[in-house]
Order: sequence, then C-alpha cells, then structure tokens
Amino acid sequence: MAEKFFSERNLKFLLHEVHQAQDLTGFAYFAEHSRESFDLVLDTAARLARDVLKPAHREMDQKPPVFENGRVKVHPLVRPLMKECGAGGWIAAQSPFEAGGQQLPTMINAACAFIMNAANFSASVYPFLTAGAAELIESFGSEELKTTFIPKMHSGEWQGTMALTEPQAGSSLSDITTLAEPTDQGYYLLRGQKIFISAGDHDGVDNIVHLLLAKIKGAPPGVKGISLFVAPKLRPGPGGLEFNDLNVAGIYHKLGYRGCPLTQLSLGENNDCRGWLVGEAHRGLPYMFQMMNGARIGVGIQAAAIASAAYYDSLEYARTRLQGRRLTSKDPTTPQIPILEHADVKRMLLFQRAVVEGSLGLLLQVSRYADLAKAAEGEDQEKYALLLDLLTPVAKTYPSEMGILAVSQALQILGGYGYCDEFPVEQHFRDMRIHPIHEGTTGIQGLDLLGRKVVMKQGRALSLYLEELEKTAAAASADEVLAPYGRRLSEASGKLKEVTGRLIGLALEGQVDLFLADSTLYLEFFGIIALAWQWLLQGLALRQGLAGRPSEAEAGFYQGKLAAMKFFFHYELPKIQGLVGRLLESDGLVLSVDSGFLAD
Amino acid sequence: MAEKFFSERNLKFLLHEVHQAQDLTGFAYFAEHSRESFDLVLDTAARLARDVLKPAHREMDQKPPVFENGRVKVHPLVRPLMKECGAGGWIAAQSPFEAGGQQLPTMINAACAFIMNAANFSASVYPFLTAGAAELIESFGSEELKTTFIPKMHSGEWQGTMALTEPQAGSSLSDITTLAEPTDQGYYLLRGQKIFISAGDHDGVDNIVHLLLAKIKGAPPGVKGISLFVAPKLRPGPGGLEFNDLNVAGIYHKLGYRGCPLTQLSLGENNDCRGWLVGEAHRGLPYMFQMMNGARIGVGIQAAAIASAAYYDSLEYARTRLQGRRLTSKDPTTPQIPILEHADVKRMLLFQRAVVEGSLGLLLQVSRYADLAKAAEGEDQEKYALLLDLLTPVAKTYPSEMGILAVSQALQILGGYGYCDEFPVEQHFRDMRIHPIHEGTTGIQGLDLLGRKVVMKQGRALSLYLEELEKTAAAASADEVLAPYGRRLSEASGKLKEVTGRLIGLALEGQVDLFLADSTLYLEFFGIIALAWQWLLQGLALRQGLAGRPSEAEAGFYQGKLAAMKFFFHYELPKIQGLVGRLLESDGLVLSVDSGFLAD
Repeated sequence: MAEKFFSERNLKFLLHEVHQAQDLTGFAYFAEHSRESFDLVLDTAARLARDVLKPAHREMDQKPPVFENGRVKVHPLVRPLMKECGAGGWIAAQSPFEAGGQQLPTMINAACAFIMNAANFSASVYPFLTAGAAELIESFGSEELKTTFIPKMHSGEWQGTMALTEPQAGSSLSDITTLAEPTDQGYYLLRGQKIFISAGDHDGVDNIVHLLLAKIKGAPPGVKGISLFVAPKLRPGPGGLEFNDLNVAGIYHKLGYRGCPLTQLSLGENNDCRGWLVGEAHRGLPYMFQMMNGARIGVGIQAAAIASAAYYDSLEYARTRLQGRRLTSKDPTTPQIPILEHADVKRMLLFQRAVVEGSLGLLLQVSRYADLAKAAEGEDQEKYALLLDLLTPVAKTYPSEMGILAVSQALQILGGYGYCDEFPVEQHFRDMRIHPIHEGTTGIQGLDLLGRKVVMKQGRALSLYLEELEKTAAAASADEVLAPYGRRLSEASGKLKEVTGRLIGLALEGQVDLFLADSTLYLEFFGIIALAWQWLLQGLALRQGLAGRPSEAEAGFYQGKLAAMKFFFHYELPKIQGLVGRLLESDGLVLSVDSGFLAD
Repeated sequence: MAEKFFSERNLKFLLHEVHQAQDLTGFAYFAEHSRESFDLVLDTAARLARDVLKPAHREMDQKPPVFENGRVKVHPLVRPLMKECGAGGWIAAQSPFEAGGQQLPTMINAACAFIMNAANFSASVYPFLTAGAAELIESFGSEELKTTFIPKMHSGEWQGTMALTEPQAGSSLSDITTLAEPTDQGYYLLRGQKIFISAGDHDGVDNIVHLLLAKIKGAPPGVKGISLFVAPKLRPGPGGLEFNDLNVAGIYHKLGYRGCPLTQLSLGENNDCRGWLVGEAHRGLPYMFQMMNGARIGVGIQAAAIASAAYYDSLEYARTRLQGRRLTSKDPTTPQIPILEHADVKRMLLFQRAVVEGSLGLLLQVSRYADLAKAAEGEDQEKYALLLDLLTPVAKTYPSEMGILAVSQALQILGGYGYCDEFPVEQHFRDMRIHPIHEGTTGIQGLDLLGRKVVMKQGRALSLYLEELEKTAAAASADEVLAPYGRRLSEASGKLKEVTGRLIGLALEGQVDLFLADSTLYLEFFGIIALAWQWLLQGLALRQGLAGRPSEAEAGFYQGKLAAMKFFFHYELPKIQGLVGRLLESDGLVLSVDSGFLAD
C-alpha cells in the first residue's frame, strides 16, 4: 500500500493558483480567514487523515458493522473519530461563528473532505453527514430544535442522518408514505419505514438524529405534500434521553463502503415515534434539497478521493514492479524495467490523473460558486447560485462514473495482484461503485441537468456557463502551448450549444419524452466538456507557474500536470464526437422499443 | 434472483440461423454429428447448468476455498461436478473419437461453456481447464504421457491446470526461472515457484496435473528457452500415487471468482519434483499457446456469460420493480410503473444485450473458424486459421472489458439493491473483473493484435477480415432496413483500413514505440467494429426470420434483437469516431511523458 493517498501540492495548486481561494477572504463573511489559516486547516486535515483515518481503512472493510440485539455495532474507531471531529471543529466548520462554527469556505471544507475521504471514505461519512444534517436544522429549524440538537451534533456526540428512501419509493420521492400525525404536544407521531440510511444507527455515538421526510396526514399527494422532520432515536425527556420508538430492522451487506452501516429503519411500531417539524409543513423537499445538493457534491468528492488513493497505490506499484523490457530492446539477458516505463501503463496512470485532478478542479470550482453564492451580492450572487445549480449534477456524476473506470485502471496496473486483497485497490474498486447510485442515480442526475437545470430561467445558467467556457478558451488563445487546446474547448462549447439547442427544440415542440430520452448521454457529454474547461483553467495556471522560474521539483510538478492536461484533450475530449453524433440523431430509438421485446 | 441466465432461443438463433452450425457436419471430421445431436448436447448442458451449477452460484462465493494443512478445501459441489462432467463426456467433448472424445465442434462446445459459465463461472473453470490441459497432452505429449494422464483427466478424477506465471514474471514469460534439471530416468527435476494458478490444488479431485512452463538447465535465454512439462501433484509410482514434492504455498483472497482457488505453488523444495517433457525441448511456448489461445476465447465466453446472467437478473428486477411514472404523466395519484418503462432503464438493458449478444456472436464466429481451421483443407484451412489468430485477442478483450460496463449497468438498474448481496448482481460485478487480467491482460492483447496479428504474413489476416466486413456490408445493402447499417459498417471498415495503414507506416519507418503506443486503443477500436460486423450478420438472419411469417412470439424475439442491433449501431459504433481521431494523431504524447513527472 502506498503511503501517499493525495497530492498536497496539487491541492494547494488548485486552491491557490487556479481557484484563488484567497479572494474569498475579501468578502465580509470570510474576512476572518487568510491563506495561512486555510493552509493550516488543510494541514490539520492531512494529519487526521494520515494518523487516524488511513490506518483503519482496511480493517473497517474487513470488519464491517454487525447488527446484534437491535443495535448496530461499528468499528471502535468511530467513537474517538467522531469525538475528534467534534473537538477539532470539523463538524461545525462551515457553520456561522454565532452557531459555534468557523465560517470556513465550502471550498476549503471540500478540500479537507477530499483529503479525509482519500484516506478512508467510509469513516469520513460519519462526521460529514452529521455536518450536513446539523446545517439543515440551522437553516430551517426552530430555535428549540437548534438548541436541542445542534450542539450535540457539532460535538460529535450525536450522529446526523438523511432519511429519504423508502421500500416503495427509491428515486420517486413523491411516493413516500411515512406518515406524520399531528398532536397537540408540538410534535408529530411518525409511522413508516426508511431504507438504505447511512449511519442510521451505531454505537459510535450516544444518539442518532434523523432528518427525515414524511407526509402529514391529509397532505396533498406527491412532492408537494412532503414535510421535513427531526426524529431522533432517543428523545430528550424529563429524566434524560428516552427511547423514541425508532427501531433498526436490519443492515445491508454491501459490495463496498463497508465501514459504515446502511440501515433499515422502522418508525412508530408502538405509535410513539415523535418527530418535530422543520420549517413549514409541505415544504420538506426544497429544504431537504439544501442538504441533498451539498451531499451530491460530497459524493463527487468521495469519488474523486477514492480514485486519488487508487492512483497513488497503482503508481507505487508501477514504480517498483519490474516486468518486461522496452519494445525496442527485448534482449532477455538485460534486466527487467519498472512497468511504469511501459506506454500502456503510463497511459493508464495519465488517465487516472486526468480523471482525478480534473474532477477535483471541477469540485473546487462548484464549491467556490457555493461560497460566492453565499458571500456575494446582487447579480453576482444570482449568477454564482445559477452556475452552482447547473453544475451540481455534473460534479456529482463525472467523478462517480469516471471514477469507476479510473479505479478499474488502477486495479489493472496491478494485474493479478490488483484482484487480490493483499493490495487495497480491490477495496477502492468496491467502495467506488456506490457513487453513481446514492444521492440520486446517474439517470436522475441526467434528468435534473437537462430537464431542469439547463432550461431553468430560460436557459440563463447555461448561457452563463457557456460564457465561462469561452472566457477560458479566449485566455488560452494567447499562449502558444495552450492555444490549440483553447480552440478545442471552443469547438466543444459550440457543440454543447448546438446539441442543447436541438434538444430544447424538441421540448418546445412538446416532445418531452424525446427531449429527455438520452439525458444520461447528454450528462456524459456535458461532463467531458466541463472537465476540459477545468483542465484548461489548470493549464493557464501551469503555464504561469512555469513562466515564474520554478525550482526543478516545481517545474516537474507543472510539467506532469501539463501532460495530464494534454492527455485529457487528446484521449478524453474526443469522446464527445460519438456522443454529439448520437445526441443529434434524436430518433427516439430507445423509446420505440416495446419493453416486451427485451425478454428473450 | 432471476431464474433465467441465458437465452436458449438466442443461442440457437446464433448457432443455426447466423453461423450455420449444421454446415460443419458436411466435413468428414464432424460427419457423425447433426443439428439434432447439437441441440441435444445444448439441452444437456442447460440441464446441468440449471440443476447443478446455478444453485451453488451464491454459496460458492460465500464459502470460498480454504487453505488448511497444506491442502486446499473447496466447495463440496466440485467433486460430484467433476465426476458428472467426466461421465457426461464434457471434459473430452472436443477430443477425437480415438482418444475417447466426441469430436464435438468447438462452436457447440463454446455454446455449452457459455451456458455453464452463465450459471456458475467459478464452478465451470474446473472441467474446462482440465479439458484444455488434456488437449495439450493429446496434441504434443508422448504415448506414455497420454495413457498415464488423459483418461483420468477426461473422467474428471484428476484436475488439469495451466501453470505459467511466476512471482518475477507475470506478463513477461521470457523471465520465468523455474528450472528443469535433466536426469537419466526419463524425467526432469523441477525447482521453482508458480503463482495465480487456477485450481492449482483442491480436494475435489484425486490428483492435479500441471501443464507447466520451465527452463531446462542451460537453455537459451528468453522465450526460446522455455519448455513444456507435465508435473502432477501425485506421481504414479510402483505402489500407486506418491507425493511429487509439489507444495501449495498459499491461496489468494480475491475480489470475485471465489468459487475456484488461485494457488501459489512451490516445486521441488526437497529436490524431488518430477516433470515430464511434453514434445521437444525449448518449444514450450508455442505448444502452450495452443492451450492459451483456447483459454483466451474461453475468457471471452466466461465474460459474455456472466454479463448474460447479469442481464437477466436486471431485466427481472426492472420488470417487477415499480417506481415513478412516465415523464408525460407525473400525476402522483396514478400508480407507479415498472422501471422497465423508463427510457434510461431501457437504454441500460439494450446496452447489455448489445454487448452480450454481440460478444456471443463474435465468440461463436471465432469458434467456427477454429472448427474450419481443423476440418477444412488447403487455402480455406489457412484462411480460417488466420482469421482465428487475428480475432482471438479481440474475442478475449471485447467481452471482458465491455462486460465490466454491462454488469455495472445491470447493477445500476437495481439501484441500492444492486450494491447489496441480497441480489446476485454484485457478485457478477466482482466475478467479471478478473477477465481483462487473466490469460494475458488487455494491454498484452493490444500488443498481440497490432504488433503481431495485424502485421503477420504481410497483413494477410487483416485483408481477409476486411473482405468479411465488406461482404457483410454488401449483403445488407439489399435490405431496406439494413442498408443504412451496411453503409455504417462499410465506413467503419474504411476507417479501420486507414488507421491501420497509418500505424503500419510508422512501423515501416522503424518507429516501433510510436506504432504500438496506443495499441490498447487500437484494440478497442477494432473490437467495436468487430461487434458491428457480428450484429449486422445477426441483422441479416433476423430479417430473414421476420420474412418467414414467424409466430407472434418469434416475431417479438426477432424484433427485440433488431432493436439491440440498431442500438449497437446508434450508441456503440459511434464511439470509434473519437478513437479514430486519437489514433490518427500518433503524436507519441504518452511516450513523451517523463515517468518522473507522474509522481506528484
């Protein structure tokens, strides 16, 4: 196993040289911070990741949670980890000062999440999920809910969750049936089932706080009748915490992501499960989407992080494993060479870097938009909020889908050893596969991007985005090395405009089915171009770095990244050609297939 | 779990309507067979698969082999299975009558292997591996070796293996160091280590017979010094079987393929491991390649078979799982629909069929070439042997690489359930991942295709292949539905010619590194076109079937396949566009990257 699981140099390059994290401190909301304080936070995250999280990575997979006597027992690391994340301010990091937080920019928090997830994805879920749940109460909950729940969550004593999915309603939230019956005591009585709830019960904390969707008795059908509740496992009572009739029905045995339990919950078996309404009735879905949008970007970070760890594991192997000789000197009496020197192994490494570092660039970009949408004002604020909205499904999906391929290539570099559990790559391969599924499947993200985000506000977000692409392409045109890549990005941006125009034309004609039939392909196409954009932005910073008389080591870093950038443009961006061809056909081929024909 | 794991109708369509299995009976070697006898064999295989193999699929994964006191204990099914495969004539199926076999065409044997592997890949490895090892002794061994080993292998009492890999020599066989010291007793004394040997030891048989590569003391360096030996675990002695100083050093714990042990062997720790030379000294590699080529096609079959099982599992789920509503009628008070009706789920199903059935077509095609290369004479014989050689790396790799994506889409259809072990798809996902690795990695197959097969005999194999593509395209041009697809195939064939010409130009200029730098991409490109060819061949048979006034069920079968064919042409074939662009660049981008730059 490689010691390295992420590149600190690269992370700082992205934050400071590409995405100008420091700029954020110019806004009042982030004014207490500085580049130095950012770097300090990153260093602390790296230490926690290296010293605490990484050493337990393998063991948490090999000793997954067990369900015994109605309780879920997790790895003994979880309790001290949650404590440390509480004490170190990680769970409250993004919260405002007045709520005990640090008002840390999302961008820096995302970078820290990347580091921790690269060390141990399953373990990192516990604190980050709690942070998201606490933030949701903070944004929409009553003062009483805030004072009751948030401090214990921020301290890592109580776990937060996100409880949406039900057996009969996975992607289709309008069909949830968990019922909330009002009482005159200020709470509702909940009855129903939730499934696939991450960290939905465990003994690494003293209580579990579910942020949960349910329907108030008599609510309108569909998503307009969904409300948000806080439903703890143990509720505060006069004599301390008492059981809230919220049972664990079981846990799932999973392909990967084994360090964290996925639970099945049963609410109100004895009609005594109390839930407290968050915000207004029937407004639960939009509230939940605050957490969900953050979680989607979080999934992208998790995916990019796992792919980062796999990259360094495969790089380490490729450097030390001797095998074969150069194609031009096959004399068997000469010594074997490290497989790193074989063109195809280099290609597999460059592919991984292109995916990992391009994805990370995009994720920090959208995180920056989240910060600007919070800190900026007026038109700017609106612009960044729109860009964030538009790019969220892309930032979730590209790393998740391409991460599978990246880790698969890491595994391939190790050959037979990659398939065996002596090396950690097979675990990365299993861990990675959850990402296109949770927090909205890839299919759902495609519908969200094309059916909602691209068309919202008369396509305003897309126009703003195309301007960003063009701005980057134009900046590249002044640089002799980057100019050809600027042209490629500009062409791709033109294709994006053309394809989108064609598809929207179908929507305007009322052909909704046809408009959205290939939305998953559209998302793939969109994602590749987004990465090209991010790589070119990185290219601009790289050229600047190279122009600044760097040390030899620094120049090597810039050159390596420049190679990965070129790789993306020469090997990945061309994939849009086939996609453009297909998307422009819009022939409804799949729609026209009688589902009965799929049988034999 | 779906009951169905393969389509009998489709298999018979491919054998009889597309690839004309019956024709083979016109050759003397296969004259004892008939269409009826072929179908009988297939039915027997299906029964064995359904009644014996499939029921143990899950359990063999959950209870993998254990290594105890120097022995490997496998699932209790293995012993009766090997007995049944022996008694039923499966292991000897392809052997000549005089060797106790049935002279079954490779094509029919491949179809049976597909059925059994779809039911239980790990379990099927035991008999098929034994068959390949026995065939190798049959082809090149002395009479004594034949009589000593083959009957016990054919009866399923002894396991055969293929022992090539060593710790310091994975893909680079020229670096094996297992030493064979001649004696004057007619045998050699072997000393060395072998790793990753499938079924290299287990208690489901009475003995293990390794077909093993080693170097005779003083042999020339490199592959020209490799010889082939038979080295049994127990050797026949005067008082029965005695231990042959061949120890198991351990087994690997694997991501998937868990029903069959991968072993690490230690030979001659007490200098008493006897090996018997097969054929001539120093000719081991070409001999082994007879078995290896068969094994590569076998890997393609295993991969397509697993993807077939995953397809039916995901189809079953998609038909029964209710979720969401049509995009055009989202009224939440109406009932939910089966997810099969959603365009994106249909797309994922069609994608799987396009991969599975296209791959199976290609695999039966190369199997047919193997039969013709055996049964035909003169120029025809040479032609089919060349086509077989050319297409072997493609028939291994396309199903292996695309099978990963196909199974991943099956898993995706099941959503969260796909990630859990309540359903068998996560096992298919794990089982599948071995295929791009064993029997020559994808990178090795790329080098084999472009560096060896395409250029052999002045490109004769490629010319013959291009003729086949053109013949198929021309046949399609007469059919109104297929004509556009014929044109697409013809264009693709032109691109194949162009790209290959460009690359060979580099080789002729002596730029070997550049010529082969993107050989893995070339293989991908080649594979997609090969599948388009096979799908169009299927299309021709489908149109014929539809023209023959089929029953409603039959018409549905043909229509469903026609949809999968169109899907391939509209969604998969366009992927060559980006590949062509990249392959024509030939700029040596990857070669130019200093490997030191990959570090940070």
